Amino acid sequence: MMRHFLQIDGHSTEELCHILDTAESFTSVDDRAVKKVPLLRGKTIVNLFFEPSTRTRTTFELAAKRLSADVLNINIATSATTKGESLLDTLFNLEAMNSDMFIVRHPESGAAEFMSNYVAPHVSIINAGDGRHAHPTQAMLDMFTIRKYAKDFSKIKVAIVGDILHSRVARSQIEALNLLGAREVRVIAPRTLLPANISQLGVEVFQTCKEGLRDVDVIIMLRLQKERMQGGFLPSEHEYFQLYGLTSERLAFAKPDAIVMHPGPINRGVEISSEVADGPQSVILQQVEYGIAVRMAILSIAMGSHDKSDRDI
Amino acid sequence: MMRHFLQIDGHSTEELCHILDTAESFTSVDDRAVKKVPLLRGKTIVNLFFEPSTRTRTTFELAAKRLSADVLNINIATSATTKGESLLDTLFNLEAMNSDMFIVRHPESGAAEFMSNYVAPHVSIINAGDGRHAHPTQAMLDMFTIRKYAKDFSKIKVAIVGDILHSRVARSQIEALNLLGAREVRVIAPRTLLPANISQLGVEVFQTCKEGLRDVDVIIMLRLQKERMQGGFLPSEHEYFQLYGLTSERLAFAKPDAIVMHPGPINRGVEISSEVADGPQSVILQQVEYGIAVRMAILSIAMGSHDKSDRDI
Amino acid sequence: MMRHFLQIDGHSTEELCHILDTAESFTSVDDRAVKKVPLLRGKTIVNLFFEPSTRTRTTFELAAKRLSADVLNINIATSATTKGESLLDTLFNLEAMNSDMFIVRHPESGAAEFMSNYVAPHVSIINAGDGRHAHPTQAMLDMFTIRKYAKDFSKIKVAIVGDILHSRVARSQIEALNLLGAREVRVIAPRTLLPANISQLGVEVFQTCKEGLRDVDVIIMLRLQKERMQGGFLPSEHEYFQLYGLTSERLAFAKPDAIVMHPGPINRGVEISSEVADGPQSVILQQVEYGIAVRMAILSIAMGSHDKSDRDI
Repeated sequence: MMRHFLQIDGHSTEELCHILDTAESFTSVDDRAVKKVPLLRGKTIVNLFFEPSTRTRTTFELAAKRLSADVLNINIATSATTKGESLLDTLFNLEAMNSDMFIVRHPESGAAEFMSNYVAPHVSIINAGDGRHAHPTQAMLDMFTIRKYAKDFSKIKVAIVGDILHSRVARSQIEALNLLGAREVRVIAPRTLLPANISQLGVEVFQTCKEGLRDVDVIIMLRLQKERMQGGFLPSEHEYFQLYGLTSERLAFAKPDAIVMHPGPINRGVEISSEVADGPQSVILQQVEYGIAVRMAILSIAMGSHDKSDRDI
Repeated sequence: MMRHFLQIDGHSTEELCHILDTAESFTSVDDRAVKKVPLLRGKTIVNLFFEPSTRTRTTFELAAKRLSADVLNINIATSATTKGESLLDTLFNLEAMNSDMFIVRHPESGAAEFMSNYVAPHVSIINAGDGRHAHPTQAMLDMFTIRKYAKDFSKIKVAIVGDILHSRVARSQIEALNLLGAREVRVIAPRTLLPANISQLGVEVFQTCKEGLRDVDVIIMLRLQKERMQGGFLPSEHEYFQLYGLTSERLAFAKPDAIVMHPGPINRGVEISSEVADGPQSVILQQVEYGIAVRMAILSIAMGSHDKSDRDI
Repeated sequence: MMRHFLQIDGHSTEELCHILDTAESFTSVDDRAVKKVPLLRGKTIVNLFFEPSTRTRTTFELAAKRLSADVLNINIATSATTKGESLLDTLFNLEAMNSDMFIVRHPESGAAEFMSNYVAPHVSIINAGDGRHAHPTQAMLDMFTIRKYAKDFSKIKVAIVGDILHSRVARSQIEALNLLGAREVRVIAPRTLLPANISQLGVEVFQTCKEGLRDVDVIIMLRLQKERMQGGFLPSEHEYFQLYGLTSERLAFAKPDAIVMHPGPINRGVEISSEVADGPQSVILQQVEYGIAVRMAILSIAMGSHDKSDRDI
């Protein structure tokens, strides 16, 4: 049983499939006139965000509310919790208020796992992004989207394009794709934006879109973190788009029915052209939609794990 | 059927009356021990505010919650969405999260209508104030208040006093009063605070309170936007009060049972004296109270329009 | 019947015991699978905070939600309401929106009581901390914790340690302890941090921990407001800890089973050592937990007072 959800690594293929199947059952919830299910009624879920993110917080808030949970949004500037000690004091205080689950975003890698070592046995931690480490719920909604459109993982080639080095999203996607048995996982990036251990991640590495996109079924564009420009990792937005931006011409390298994904929010004209982002092969908004159902699945599975009677409510 | 509510103009007298009648039925909700009705249970309503406004956001939030909807508050600094493209990306992302309705406040005239052209058929847009253009829900709560106290529109003279030029509230009030058949609609303002096309709006124009307030049944004071001072539109707060501030002396020009209204928050001693604001003819707090019921009416009518089955929940 | 809860002073011993007994019944709510009770369903409770406080606001928000009330969080910078007039306008506007209860935190002593003189008969005011005056709900959760662990007030000696002068918490604790018949209430503080009228408060005054902590059953540490340093009231954090910080050595002066309390958030190494804060005698996190139940009790009793039919919902 899955109590926390901290990263993809360490979970079994069966667990990931169970999440996807459960999410499938929640997509129908969205079509009903009344969109709520009472699964987590009376539960208190805390959005504990040490990094600002309206978008991700909102999807978790909606997922929790549609499960009928009470949601508490706590935004904490990192400065106030520079010492690990203070971080735990914050956590223990919120836990003492009978919180059942923490959805944690934190700029430092490992923060969610760190907290999971200290919470009481009936409390779950969901990682909503920690440093460069992992963003497993984003990866799962991406897997859900791929399964919806491309169907069979064993037959598809997936290319992830962009700043792999700084991307927690890419790390979690690569792990999930390999666990679910994708035929081939490719990364396309300049050398400066690849992690040193890239060869151990189970991916094929390409430097150009022309080669890397050839015959792929799924293209996942990463968001360009503009603050990376200052770090000397990248020349300019314009040059980046010239080399790695997804245009119609480059999309033509992929299979004709390849789907285009992006975790959002997109930088139009930087990593993707508007023509492609708004085109017929883009499933970017579907990702957002499925994100609610996938997060409902993860929240309800995690909550069900530590208290089976919860499921009977 | 009214799917969006973007401005008064374009709606029929019957539609406005239907809003007022529906609001009437919700005022009784406020008197019950349990103030909620389950009309919009399971619906997600997004307060999408590109301009800060605790007050208006709060009234919409309360109206939505009393209809049992889930409410999401999203505040976006305009700087982040300077391009229309980004505004639509924001909208489409929130829509993809299965939002059913957007309550939009935006500093640019036409923003709510712009969005209404792009949302999916099952999504409603309510204008909560766009630039200088319109603030139709405020106008409707004003109409509700007038009907409560002055009863028959065909017999009443209404004077709107203050900065007509910059007021989206005034524009919507004038349209609503004319649609509902008010006997006479007057505006009282210095020439510098009147729009160029004022003569086409169906109002009588007065420059002084002495003339303009004579024999009116309803006085609507506008809020003085203090930032206008810098623009050279106004000499000083003190001088403004000398010329246009509503004092007991000026109130005496109106009918003895005339009511005094103000959209709030009031600037005491600038556009209205405390004696009048707190006096027996003031219905300023009643406007606030009716504002909840009127917004409940508008939200439920709009939601009912695009999905008739919603009404049967 | 208790309509407002503004300070401990003025309430009877019976009323305080009724709060503690009611809170006892709510602690079991926390153990149920579904933690909500429908007592305040349909009620609107406004968290009206003129001072930032995520922590206190959160506990009230959770208490209100577990009673099934709708909660509105309003944070107002004091600058916007420097005049008492504006404060009342804010209050009256929120009241007009059919709010049933205001939970008020304000930097000025007496603000909550001031408001209570003006609200409508069906509206309750709960003081969540006003200036240096009172913080009665904190005092009641402290009393609840003491009763849980130390059981019989008539047999216990309690020492409150720290900045009594600036502490609204200490004032309310002293009043509550005396009303509930504590055998002895001590304060331990440097002369500069004692109020002038300390001898009239019904406490024994000690300047050193060695004397003051001898044989006590309960130790309540106050939070050191670091901004006091600038005022010249205190030499340095380090020196303060040397003189008044609760260490294991000092804790040994108290009875062997004495409990250690703190209103939180704690400054480790300033007013308390980590060894003591995390040690077996510390009940600091239990205070947080009981705080929800005690606030549920106060909210429901206050709401029940002005409308008996509410209780039957």
